[in-house]
Amino acid sequence: MDRKILHKLSYGMYVISSAKEGKLDGQIANTVFQITSKPAKIAISINKENLTYEYIKYSNVFSVSILSTEAPFKFIGLFGFRSGRDINKFENVKYKIGVTGAPIVLDYSLGYIEAKVVDSVDVGTHVLFIGEVVDADSIQEGTPMTYDYYHNVVKGKTPPKAATYVGGS
Amino acid sequence: MDRKILHKLSYGMYVISSAKEGKLDGQIANTVFQITSKPAKIAISINKENLTYEYIKYSNVFSVSILSTEAPFKFIGLFGFRSGRDINKFENVKYKIGVTGAPIVLDYSLGYIEAKVVDSVDVGTHVLFIGEVVDADSIQEGTPMTYDYYHNVVKGKTPPKAATYVGGS
Repeated sequence: MDRKILHKLSYGMYVISSAKEGKLDGQIANTVFQITSKPAKIAISINKENLTYEYIKYSNVFSVSILSTEAPFKFIGLFGFRSGRDINKFENVKYKIGVTGAPIVLDYSLGYIEAKVVDSVDVGTHVLFIGEVVDADSIQEGTPMTYDYYHNVVKGKTPPKAATYVGGS
Repeated sequence: MDRKILHKLSYGMYVISSAKEGKLDGQIANTVFQITSKPAKIAISINKENLTYEYIKYSNVFSVSILSTEAPFKFIGLFGFRSGRDINKFENVKYKIGVTGAPIVLDYSLGYIEAKVVDSVDVGTHVLFIGEVVDADSIQEGTPMTYDYYHNVVKGKTPPKAATYVGGS
């Protein structure tokens, strides 16, 4: 068995956000996909150790911001390599509160989807949340960032010092 | 609500195959993603009306072939726009039978993943199958085809006559 072939699956790059009693959190995820059209439902896979998992489990709502290729490594590092238990990730980020009450990250986002959890599956280290889409809108024109683009272009552009700073905590 | 933003989610292009009592079937899918790493599990979303759905439900196994950008529209049309109820899709296709008993399409495939269904979720028109990876291997070097590439390049390359032939049945 050669597990490396799993890296050839294609993904996008997203910020998934949720809220709990007025506190906001969000995280980078690459596993977001539409699973039905009528009604529109999406699935996301979230690690149980993440604060965002706790917030989604509590509120049963989440938002997905679709990142553009313009998103720099520092921004992705803020949502991807830091924990909302240590910092308020939304302090210096442009966002709005959606109809579900979940925050929606607007920086570097082509658009967003808001969903209400209608089912969930415990798959071990992660939980698959299945959400019915309750709102969605475009924010700006641009190209969606793929996971491949992130690995080959965004990471490649980043000076080692910045990478250490963002990713080192 | 502007649902068009859902088209900005990123996907790959895959052939998902399964078997039932010696009969083989497969279909194009764009919704394949890894949801856990230890052990490796993947999720796929399959329309309940498809023959492949019937076969997976019966056998509890499936394979995923990761298509390369070399796959022509005609090949994608065979697996994407025809039903295994009308034709034997494997008749003129290079494939092998995997350890699970599911067929694995080798033509235009960078590699494959074989999985055993460990859970499933009815999400309305579709079922989400969650599979534990039991085998995986590379077949050839190349670039994975994304859903975006399929829409913007592969379809664009195809003469209308061919498109009508393949998609018109």
